[in-house]
Amino acid sequence: MAQAQAQRRRNGNIRNGNGNGSQCKENDLLLLLRERSEGQGHHHVHRLNLTSSLNKGNNAKATIVTVLALAMAILLLLFYSFSTSTSTSTRITSPSTTGTAYEALSVSVSPDSDAVINLDHGDPTMFEPFWKNAGDKATVVIPGWHTMSYFSDTSNLCWFLEPDFANQVRRLHRIVGNAVTHAHHIIVGVGSTQLIHALLFALSATATGHPVSVVSAAPFYSMYPGITDFLKSGLFRWAGDATSFKVNGSSSFIEIVCSPNNPDGTLRRAVLSTEAGKLVHDLAYYWPQYTPMRGPADEDIMLFTVSKATGHAGTRIGWALVRDADVARRMVKFIEMNSIGVSKDSQVRAARILQVISDGYELPDPDSTTSFFHFSRRLLADRWQRLRRAVEESGRFSLPQFSSKFCEFTKEHTETYPAFAWLRCDDESIEDCEGFFKSMKVLTRSGRHFGAGPEYIRISMLDRAHNFDLFVERIASLGLR
Amino acid sequence: MAQAQAQRRRNGNIRNGNGNGSQCKENDLLLLLRERSEGQGHHHVHRLNLTSSLNKGNNAKATIVTVLALAMAILLLLFYSFSTSTSTSTRITSPSTTGTAYEALSVSVSPDSDAVINLDHGDPTMFEPFWKNAGDKATVVIPGWHTMSYFSDTSNLCWFLEPDFANQVRRLHRIVGNAVTHAHHIIVGVGSTQLIHALLFALSATATGHPVSVVSAAPFYSMYPGITDFLKSGLFRWAGDATSFKVNGSSSFIEIVCSPNNPDGTLRRAVLSTEAGKLVHDLAYYWPQYTPMRGPADEDIMLFTVSKATGHAGTRIGWALVRDADVARRMVKFIEMNSIGVSKDSQVRAARILQVISDGYELPDPDSTTSFFHFSRRLLADRWQRLRRAVEESGRFSLPQFSSKFCEFTKEHTETYPAFAWLRCDDESIEDCEGFFKSMKVLTRSGRHFGAGPEYIRISMLDRAHNFDLFVERIASLGLR
Repeated sequence: MAQAQAQRRRNGNIRNGNGNGSQCKENDLLLLLRERSEGQGHHHVHRLNLTSSLNKGNNAKATIVTVLALAMAILLLLFYSFSTSTSTSTRITSPSTTGTAYEALSVSVSPDSDAVINLDHGDPTMFEPFWKNAGDKATVVIPGWHTMSYFSDTSNLCWFLEPDFANQVRRLHRIVGNAVTHAHHIIVGVGSTQLIHALLFALSATATGHPVSVVSAAPFYSMYPGITDFLKSGLFRWAGDATSFKVNGSSSFIEIVCSPNNPDGTLRRAVLSTEAGKLVHDLAYYWPQYTPMRGPADEDIMLFTVSKATGHAGTRIGWALVRDADVARRMVKFIEMNSIGVSKDSQVRAARILQVISDGYELPDPDSTTSFFHFSRRLLADRWQRLRRAVEESGRFSLPQFSSKFCEFTKEHTETYPAFAWLRCDDESIEDCEGFFKSMKVLTRSGRHFGAGPEYIRISMLDRAHNFDLFVERIASLGLR
Repeated sequence: MAQAQAQRRRNGNIRNGNGNGSQCKENDLLLLLRERSEGQGHHHVHRLNLTSSLNKGNNAKATIVTVLALAMAILLLLFYSFSTSTSTSTRITSPSTTGTAYEALSVSVSPDSDAVINLDHGDPTMFEPFWKNAGDKATVVIPGWHTMSYFSDTSNLCWFLEPDFANQVRRLHRIVGNAVTHAHHIIVGVGSTQLIHALLFALSATATGHPVSVVSAAPFYSMYPGITDFLKSGLFRWAGDATSFKVNGSSSFIEIVCSPNNPDGTLRRAVLSTEAGKLVHDLAYYWPQYTPMRGPADEDIMLFTVSKATGHAGTRIGWALVRDADVARRMVKFIEMNSIGVSKDSQVRAARILQVISDGYELPDPDSTTSFFHFSRRLLADRWQRLRRAVEESGRFSLPQFSSKFCEFTKEHTETYPAFAWLRCDDESIEDCEGFFKSMKVLTRSGRHFGAGPEYIRISMLDRAHNFDLFVERIASLGLR
């Protein structure tokens, strides 16, 4: 039975679209409905939730349904091939004809089971539905003669920082309560990636002699080693896992503390003494959709990025909050040498995006369509619940567990819903977890890139709903084989 | 007399606004009028062209006019201080009350003679009037949910390149005829500055042993040495003037050929044999407003930037045309590691800007309001004529001379009007030309930064009209001392 069902699944005719739809809270369901109807730049495949009944029912019924579905597929295919020529795939979309939103007919000619699902990068397209719904107030209009100069504010240490963007950054931090900003300079960068480069330069340029060692506790963000070493700089070099780094009294080091941590979502503190070294706090994920707010961070150097805060990865805007003016000045020098500043268009756009989020919380009566972090957290909560269930059913993998904590932003106890799933292959027959998922046409990133073992993979939780749904289906199917 | 006039000029009450206005060609005058009325983000100071009449007239008349002007100044100041609080300066603007556009009353409370004029950077704000005039067609509108993904086109080697931007780049090169593109990959960067970094990496990452030497013929762009050396990379190092570089048979080198050259505007070819080395052609200024088009460049690696092509420095968008796919791939790797791609908002905007220029030339009947390069060339021609006259009158400086050449774009013989004036202090009493201009509150960049001597300075020709006018006045005043 299970084998036959798996075969049908591979044939792509009838699949288990979302087996836990009925268990969603009503709010989440509404949000997910909006996500499904607005959130994707391609045609949606609505699915009839038939698998559970097939499990309980008899083969004759299943055969009838299958034959009917095939017949409809042929008819719809004929209609579809005449009605559109813009779609690159040959999926067929039909509206729901049954009672609940999750019960819809799925007919796939180029089956989704053949689709490669790329969850290697943390591409935050999950947030698109919120911004579609936000409408005109999130739109920016830039006339041809605006922001032509290199300069944004020559009176500011960071002369390429758009004042309105800086204002919106301070405002959002104040509303969310995730970082203090009053004693800090704001340095804008081409994503937080450029800012990490700028910091390595700023914190090592005054050092003499040997290159400064750069460390982070494993598992660490996979780009830290490459960012540090790829130009073979004489100023700094990657020195690996902070927990096994031996501090040498005379030589300096930089510890990057990512909290919540990419890839595993844990809250972190520095593991090394700060007396001999410098700390960089990468707080890209310290936002209410991912983790409870435990009070404003007040570190010397803090990094944030629009990509993870709002989902606008394509704008390439990050910002650093930097207490020391000399460090800030050297970061500015790096960005001058590296790119002579940062896109003003993207700063203007990011300012608008942050403004919409802040405005949404300062309205008299915020609701789920204006409360970005609440909206996003419910989406992530639903995804994590579904992923945890599928992983449990598979019996082959495990995921990190997090305790519920009080969130000072939402004023309630909330769970942690990281932007990545740090999945462990417990099944000892699987030597290379990344390779195993690749054989299922799911692209992930091996633990090896994070200073961990090949039994781990990092999986993006932030992709578009359709891709995430397919991914959960594939994991769930493993338990049935 | 001359001293008294200079004193009045310093007092800032009545000044020679533009002594050569009547010598402008009619077209240029119209363009400059538009520039004056539209081009600047601050209040304009219109001037009464009284100095020449003062030279011929008598002091009594001048005194009456001066007293009247001062009286109006006080009245206007009272009005002004009540009517606005947004202006940071206390300049007073009054409409022209006399016959020609250049004859207008100037009343300056915070005198322009005290203003610091920054012509150190090549900030291309001179082009703002064209884009103001272009109106809505140059405006971009970006909804909140657009271009959120990191990815623009996963089928392209350069996965972060917006397809529409690439199309408009190819189209503009075809219309202008300044570069072939059919055999080249387009790599977009955060300005051409990031692309130079990307190229140093791409052209040295496969080399073994010693760092690759990077050279350029002096005078060379002042940022090349810093870009190469500031991270103390083990992959490449700055080796100075290409003309004195000794090619060593076994070791590789990179020669950067800037043509037209920054700072001196000359057309350049490589000075070293290409067999042992790699050539990077920085063609940022190979556009019709600066130099006659002598046919499409067809080099292996060519760099362009929106900053100098259209004046949009704040968008931070450059592009490389790269023949070799492996070099292009390594550039993409650099940009991934450096900034995970390039702002999509700015690419969208740059696409629109390039489109407006191309559309302007493909209209049935292009005119000065739609022909960007013609518009810009006339502005530059006027500026160069005025600067050359002032320099000649001063008797202390000299400028490069260029012969007229046939431009294959405009189909006429045209002059060269570089984006920078490479000025030489011939006066031997001036040891440090940059310091001398600084004492006149004109910030320039010393020849020392370009591999030349302190008798040279580089002066931006692309600033806003008001600043350029003040600068020419100050040079002209030197001849009167």
